[in-house]
Amino acid sequence: MNDIAQMLEHPEAGTARNHNSANSKVMNIGFIGLGQMGGGMAANLLKAGHRVTVFNRTPAKANPLIAQGDAVVTMLANDDAVEDVVLGRDGVIANLASGGLHVSSSTISVTLSERLTEAHARKSQKFVAAPVFGRPDVAAAGRLFIVAGGDAAAIEAAAPVLEAIGQKTFVISDTPKAANLVKLSGNFLGASVIEALGEAMALIGKAGIDERQYLEFLTSTLFNAPIYKTYGSLIADGRFTPPGFAAPLGQKDIRLVLAAAEDLRVPMPVASLLRDRFLNLLAHGGDRLDWSAIGRLPAADAGTAEFSTV
Amino acid sequence: MNDIAQMLEHPEAGTARNHNSANSKVMNIGFIGLGQMGGGMAANLLKAGHRVTVFNRTPAKANPLIAQGDAVVTMLANDDAVEDVVLGRDGVIANLASGGLHVSSSTISVTLSERLTEAHARKSQKFVAAPVFGRPDVAAAGRLFIVAGGDAAAIEAAAPVLEAIGQKTFVISDTPKAANLVKLSGNFLGASVIEALGEAMALIGKAGIDERQYLEFLTSTLFNAPIYKTYGSLIADGRFTPPGFAAPLGQKDIRLVLAAAEDLRVPMPVASLLRDRFLNLLAHGGDRLDWSAIGRLPAADAGTAEFSTV
Amino acid sequence: MNDIAQMLEHPEAGTARNHNSANSKVMNIGFIGLGQMGGGMAANLLKAGHRVTVFNRTPAKANPLIAQGDAVVTMLANDDAVEDVVLGRDGVIANLASGGLHVSSSTISVTLSERLTEAHARKSQKFVAAPVFGRPDVAAAGRLFIVAGGDAAAIEAAAPVLEAIGQKTFVISDTPKAANLVKLSGNFLGASVIEALGEAMALIGKAGIDERQYLEFLTSTLFNAPIYKTYGSLIADGRFTPPGFAAPLGQKDIRLVLAAAEDLRVPMPVASLLRDRFLNLLAHGGDRLDWSAIGRLPAADAGTAEFSTV
Amino acid sequence: MNDIAQMLEHPEAGTARNHNSANSKVMNIGFIGLGQMGGGMAANLLKAGHRVTVFNRTPAKANPLIAQGDAVVTMLANDDAVEDVVLGRDGVIANLASGGLHVSSSTISVTLSERLTEAHARKSQKFVAAPVFGRPDVAAAGRLFIVAGGDAAAIEAAAPVLEAIGQKTFVISDTPKAANLVKLSGNFLGASVIEALGEAMALIGKAGIDERQYLEFLTSTLFNAPIYKTYGSLIADGRFTPPGFAAPLGQKDIRLVLAAAEDLRVPMPVASLLRDRFLNLLAHGGDRLDWSAIGRLPAADAGTAEFSTV
Repeated sequence: MNDIAQMLEHPEAGTARNHNSANSKVMNIGFIGLGQMGGGMAANLLKAGHRVTVFNRTPAKANPLIAQGDAVVTMLANDDAVEDVVLGRDGVIANLASGGLHVSSSTISVTLSERLTEAHARKSQKFVAAPVFGRPDVAAAGRLFIVAGGDAAAIEAAAPVLEAIGQKTFVISDTPKAANLVKLSGNFLGASVIEALGEAMALIGKAGIDERQYLEFLTSTLFNAPIYKTYGSLIADGRFTPPGFAAPLGQKDIRLVLAAAEDLRVPMPVASLLRDRFLNLLAHGGDRLDWSAIGRLPAADAGTAEFSTV
Repeated sequence: MNDIAQMLEHPEAGTARNHNSANSKVMNIGFIGLGQMGGGMAANLLKAGHRVTVFNRTPAKANPLIAQGDAVVTMLANDDAVEDVVLGRDGVIANLASGGLHVSSSTISVTLSERLTEAHARKSQKFVAAPVFGRPDVAAAGRLFIVAGGDAAAIEAAAPVLEAIGQKTFVISDTPKAANLVKLSGNFLGASVIEALGEAMALIGKAGIDERQYLEFLTSTLFNAPIYKTYGSLIADGRFTPPGFAAPLGQKDIRLVLAAAEDLRVPMPVASLLRDRFLNLLAHGGDRLDWSAIGRLPAADAGTAEFSTV
Repeated sequence: MNDIAQMLEHPEAGTARNHNSANSKVMNIGFIGLGQMGGGMAANLLKAGHRVTVFNRTPAKANPLIAQGDAVVTMLANDDAVEDVVLGRDGVIANLASGGLHVSSSTISVTLSERLTEAHARKSQKFVAAPVFGRPDVAAAGRLFIVAGGDAAAIEAAAPVLEAIGQKTFVISDTPKAANLVKLSGNFLGASVIEALGEAMALIGKAGIDERQYLEFLTSTLFNAPIYKTYGSLIADGRFTPPGFAAPLGQKDIRLVLAAAEDLRVPMPVASLLRDRFLNLLAHGGDRLDWSAIGRLPAADAGTAEFSTV
Repeated sequence: MNDIAQMLEHPEAGTARNHNSANSKVMNIGFIGLGQMGGGMAANLLKAGHRVTVFNRTPAKANPLIAQGDAVVTMLANDDAVEDVVLGRDGVIANLASGGLHVSSSTISVTLSERLTEAHARKSQKFVAAPVFGRPDVAAAGRLFIVAGGDAAAIEAAAPVLEAIGQKTFVISDTPKAANLVKLSGNFLGASVIEALGEAMALIGKAGIDERQYLEFLTSTLFNAPIYKTYGSLIADGRFTPPGFAAPLGQKDIRLVLAAAEDLRVPMPVASLLRDRFLNLLAHGGDRLDWSAIGRLPAADAGTAEFSTV
């Protein structure tokens, strides 16, 4: 996609009703980052009746739009992109008006979140870290779970945005970076499910037990959470393309968890193991695979699965 | 409890109706092992209309009862107890009639299950390995999940027993030891949830985030399985006594998983980590704690939790 | 080799001089276990002037020889062999005279060593655990290092034997099993060197640095111990056959270390990692390789070494 | 120490003889970084007959001295210090003459070494990465081991400097960063010895075996390298202050090893374990302890050592 701003107008903008009437204010929102997730999120902002201008990256000519808007939402791939778009020359912070709102939904490091918080504060701008849980289909359906951090005024200002994007928002702290840490910890927990399932399936599979029956048993009894069903069947089927969440992104998130843990001096041996699993996967050509492909490495170690895409 | 047989008679034995009429045969069942789990299981056999004789351990004078019965159910603490009661002199195998049924619900090693299978075969006895998932309250309610292994004739003979004990039985294989391996792998998965949750909570807790709010978020979104709720709140509250499932039993099960993995040559790094966690816990006086107490060790490593009961 | 006793007589038995004149008594020694190590050890007993009768396994007809001898030395592959030969019917304990000496040089479990100690005590026999450090060429040269455990009288009686076999004996404890634990811990340390070297070499090798130059640097500076030289060059050359110490024996020793650590409740994460490395190696056809082949697994994980012999 | 340049003149500068006459050219050397290591290194440059100007940090007024000198040697604590002193405004690169030499002996990241290499190349300056192995007393004695990387011309120019500082220099590559990686890998190997020894000593210690006798045995047999003797006795004595090499520096080096391994996609499980050990140590007040204090954590896990300085 070219780096060209597009004005998307909701067809019934004038009559739209937000599902929460108390927050039914129509906002002028700039949305930066139209990947698999951002597209659905922006569309839901439109459906909720807001005026949404979308950008892939902040172009110079779009600055006036940002300067005049109520809020900017960013949903970008990593720290570098956010740093560039938000903190860079002609970036969000440089252009957003005093009192304007930035909702950051990207999965970024705790450190960068802290820097964004400070930079916005210096410009008297509102800042909410609001990372989301859910895959692209969930984003498109407006059913994301959101964990949010920010001071009360910022959270209040962000409410219409968050309501449009997600099915539920948990305000975990008045410090934005806390929300980022919770998001990272959630991805750590997800990866740990993949690893543990992978080990269990390598074990029972090598013993001759049918992996799919095994999963059916597990997921209809004690482990009846969607995460076990989703990842268990991806591992059992060895179905890692196309990626719903690519391995390099998983590796990045584990890196960010470990970086936060290092700053806080918290040893996390399972996270360390996951780090090594992702490096192994990427060293064997796994860049384009779903992150759940690490769940096949235990079987590779056991000699029952081939694992090389190179 | 003394080693004395008790004849428990169901008050309405004559009129009892099994919930599955196809299997409504009244059986004469010997039940060996009346711990927290066994008591509830035996009571449910009675409720289903069977004649149940219960023993703590097989006493010599009870042998005639076993010899004349249709089935024996064993629910004992570990390999040693099962080996003694089943394979020992005057044990179940020595006394059970040809064609009689043994349902073994204990969590035992794959190796012992294999030995039991062979020993029963030599005596033309039926054998079903039927380990159960659930805590004592679930056993009392007859809501256990059962994973069963055994040949078709044995499984058919065991059906009335299994129906009375559990809410659902999954027949995973015609080889008994497969059921034992599945049970062990399930406990491994449970312990891995405890460990991963413990690490995540140590991380966000040291960052100043409220652990209970964090758990509420997790367990109302992606991790909405009972196991996350149960163990998450035990860890957050540091509530490890009285034990629902004692740490030494957890340590034993991880040992049995690792023994099975060794025989099959399957590396399981998370299981290895769990082994070390349990040894650490037991080295600090954790024998009487719930196994979920290993979930507090990450916070102890991070310097935010004291951990010593000695 | 058949299970037939051979009487080996030292050519100059009558005039032989032990290097320690205080212990120059000529002994009648039965030597059981003629593997790569045992052959050299038995030869050195002969050279020292003793009368040595060697067996592969205790044959019934050899019992009188054992009954009339001063000492029996056992050097067998594992716990099962030692249990059979020493504790079995017609075994060493059954036949050795009261006051007779058993020197056990096999690498066995702490638990079995304890059982041997008790069994010998019941027969008023002397028992010394005297495991050895060194490869077959070192055994042949009589240059083994010996770590010994036993009460003072047993150690004194064993002195001529130990002097003939090794270059130096360290009496670590008056409890035999302590010597076995030290031996196992030494093999653990050896394997940990292999693992750490393997990781370091995978790292610098993937960065394009010459592995042999790297090793030359390491082993001529801070890591100038023979163990780094030996294993470093085996790893660099990928030269794992013929095995000097076979992988299954290494796996067994790590298992015994972990078993001792479990009994003592000592978490050992590096030992746990080594366990998984050996299982991985054995799952990929490594049974006939030298144990240092685990040192190539880090490069396999990094995608720079193929690792499969199957 | 204030940030003031001091001119140190060797008393017999005119008559000094370099031990290698072929390289006996007297150089004008700026030495930046006078910590425990740098002091001894600078003194040895003086002894070798060079003119040495020492700085704690590059002061503005010292720039002419650097501009007119033949070489600058930097020996600083970490990446930040080197980045500041070398790449910063008025730093080494800004002032060193074209053709001038920079010898970087600090233990820094591979990434920073690469940036330094590129920056020097742009200014046509010579650059040698020459990290050193040895503790402060070894530095003072001029007995350091040096591993060097740089192109042939730079290495040749640096020869008199390296000869004065160390007992031996290994030129590992014509790429400077390779030397930095080797240095980091060496510290990883050192830490892995500490960890493995710590586990072994926790095991045998809990079994009642004397740790010092155990060490004497180990270090007089297969593990007779200085590193085992040094660290083994520090661990056995629990003597971690004053630090010879402080825990935060050890933690930093493991972090840099892991960062290099991540860039190269090389899983290093022992390095991951060491990372967690250092975080645990630092979380319990270990900042001022010697890095070998991680070797006491296994005993703490086993319940036989207290470990808290807070």
